[in-house]
Amino acid sequence: MFQLLANDSSSKARRGRLTTSHGVIETPIFMPVGTQGSVKAVSPDELRQLKAQIILGNTYHLFVRPGVDVVQHFGGLHRFIAWDGPILTDSGGYQVFSLAKLRKITDEGVHFQNHLDGSPCFIGPETAMEIQAALGSDIAMAFDECPHYPCDYDYAARSLDLTLRWAERCRRWAGEHAKRPAVFGIVQGSTFADLRRKSAEALTALDFDGYAVGGVSVGEPEDEMFRAIENSEPFLPAHKARYAMGLGTPPQIVEMVARGIDMFDCVLPTRIARNGTAFTAAGTLNLKNAIYARDKQPIEEGCACPACAQFTRGYIRHLIKAEEILGLRLITLHNLHFYLHLMEKIRASIEDGSFGEFRKSFVSNYQIRATDVEK
Amino acid sequence: MFQLLANDSSSKARRGRLTTSHGVIETPIFMPVGTQGSVKAVSPDELRQLKAQIILGNTYHLFVRPGVDVVQHFGGLHRFIAWDGPILTDSGGYQVFSLAKLRKITDEGVHFQNHLDGSPCFIGPETAMEIQAALGSDIAMAFDECPHYPCDYDYAARSLDLTLRWAERCRRWAGEHAKRPAVFGIVQGSTFADLRRKSAEALTALDFDGYAVGGVSVGEPEDEMFRAIENSEPFLPAHKARYAMGLGTPPQIVEMVARGIDMFDCVLPTRIARNGTAFTAAGTLNLKNAIYARDKQPIEEGCACPACAQFTRGYIRHLIKAEEILGLRLITLHNLHFYLHLMEKIRASIEDGSFGEFRKSFVSNYQIRATDVEK
Repeated sequence: MFQLLANDSSSKARRGRLTTSHGVIETPIFMPVGTQGSVKAVSPDELRQLKAQIILGNTYHLFVRPGVDVVQHFGGLHRFIAWDGPILTDSGGYQVFSLAKLRKITDEGVHFQNHLDGSPCFIGPETAMEIQAALGSDIAMAFDECPHYPCDYDYAARSLDLTLRWAERCRRWAGEHAKRPAVFGIVQGSTFADLRRKSAEALTALDFDGYAVGGVSVGEPEDEMFRAIENSEPFLPAHKARYAMGLGTPPQIVEMVARGIDMFDCVLPTRIARNGTAFTAAGTLNLKNAIYARDKQPIEEGCACPACAQFTRGYIRHLIKAEEILGLRLITLHNLHFYLHLMEKIRASIEDGSFGEFRKSFVSNYQIRATDVEK
Repeated sequence: MFQLLANDSSSKARRGRLTTSHGVIETPIFMPVGTQGSVKAVSPDELRQLKAQIILGNTYHLFVRPGVDVVQHFGGLHRFIAWDGPILTDSGGYQVFSLAKLRKITDEGVHFQNHLDGSPCFIGPETAMEIQAALGSDIAMAFDECPHYPCDYDYAARSLDLTLRWAERCRRWAGEHAKRPAVFGIVQGSTFADLRRKSAEALTALDFDGYAVGGVSVGEPEDEMFRAIENSEPFLPAHKARYAMGLGTPPQIVEMVARGIDMFDCVLPTRIARNGTAFTAAGTLNLKNAIYARDKQPIEEGCACPACAQFTRGYIRHLIKAEEILGLRLITLHNLHFYLHLMEKIRASIEDGSFGEFRKSFVSNYQIRATDVEK
């Protein structure tokens, strides 16, 4: 499934190729998040124009609404949402633990009330696999518990044991189903190096189709986030894809690539767009700021996105202030282009041996202005 | 400016051509409403794909935010919003009377506090002309008072006299400015036949570039709306364009064309889209309705709009229920296509002599379901 094309000499960065049932993905890659069957504010045609190679769907959200039976009735998620490229689905675990109410966790799985109408629901490892297969996912994630940050050692260790028992059951399910999505295991273990190693080694022994690092981007400081990857990656097989879940800022993504990660997803580019914040190589730009009212420049000079091709900062600021949908559409297009184009530059720099240089200059040019980022 | 190309034999319907500084408009025509410098939820490129020939901008809204000076700084409204086709602006009168606070009406004009930050503002006939010229409007509307419905005879008569004095001053301003937008006068007179006639005759004597019928679509029953047009149109010159302001439903538009109207604007297609309601030849369709959850049809079979080309009712319903922006984008595209395509069919039927037939079959096939339309 994963082909390693090149290694960077200055870091652990890798250039790879991931083959799925809906097409080939060049890695490192960013996956726009289509939580409820739509990447917020953009159309499938626009995603294709932006050269998105794969998008993410959230199992929990789709399970709750419109329901798996409805998606199946339409012939699966690809047909339902009119996206014929690859789709990765998460397992639902993260949202069951963050959104659902009245959770009861047992070895069997999780009983909960969904956040929309409070109906009693159940998801366990096998159901998570079945739901993702029914959605028609190309890459399904194992069902896991994602501990909060901070988390004490005992809780993290017990949680990891549960997650590993669930991972075994997901792997067994995969072994028993010929026609199934690729299945990725998820490394947990919170901030503890020995647990991360134990998790990565146990999952590797189970021989998943790929591996993710979970339990990151859950509120921990950036150095803990990097450490979680550094404590996991060395124990994952080189010939399988590695996915860091739910992150991050543009420099964090560059740093994660340097630590051997191939795949990313993050709501940041779409979420902060709705707050009027755009990404640029020099950091974020909050277009609500009055200094942009008469600014005739595009969001970013030289940017090839559809927003920068036609519209000024001043006009987009007006749209955001006036709460016009076109404003957040334009910033969303720009931000997704920024992330996807960043990955393109990362891939090219790994290929031509200049990633070390690119990493240094990108990270030093980029300054995230904390006030510009929505929580 | 206006060329009359054909008259319908069964009604007062006309096929015409209106030449503006930003291009030629084939009439009868529907003008999508871009209140704050954006037709809600759609991009200028999408408007071009929908073959919109002219859009409307709201003077009051743009005057309040971002301000006329800001729009001028960007080289006028066309450049500011990246739309190079014709733009008609209203005079601001309607919003001054419906949105602004603490109005004081004198012969000079209207002092008011704007609805956003309460700043004291003034718009009178000459300022309304100057603002619209500064915005770079192709067709500017005379400044008028639009009386509420119902309105007693004395108020309507006094209001009409004020509107006519203001119309004279708008016409004088136009006569004194060589480089200016086309200026349309607005027939008022509420529900009173003699006032409507007086208004139309007085405006005709002033020789405007075109004429609108105002004070319609302000809450009156449909027969009063038709009557207001019937009481105005006979007294307007045949060789000038006629515009019925702020309406209406698809059958109302067909009926207005039959009564000699050439131009229409209405927020209905964009506004009810945001509520999940789509137009079809058989009437409106509220996609929030549970019966569409598993519906694999497009909004309307055979429709050539971008939404119907790719997406099912079931998916669009899911998007609307999940409050995804793509849902209201798709219905907005469909509804604007529906209105613009309706005008195309009206034009073609006037040309080939079948308008009478078209009118009869369209109106009888169309049933507006009151529950489906947002107030």
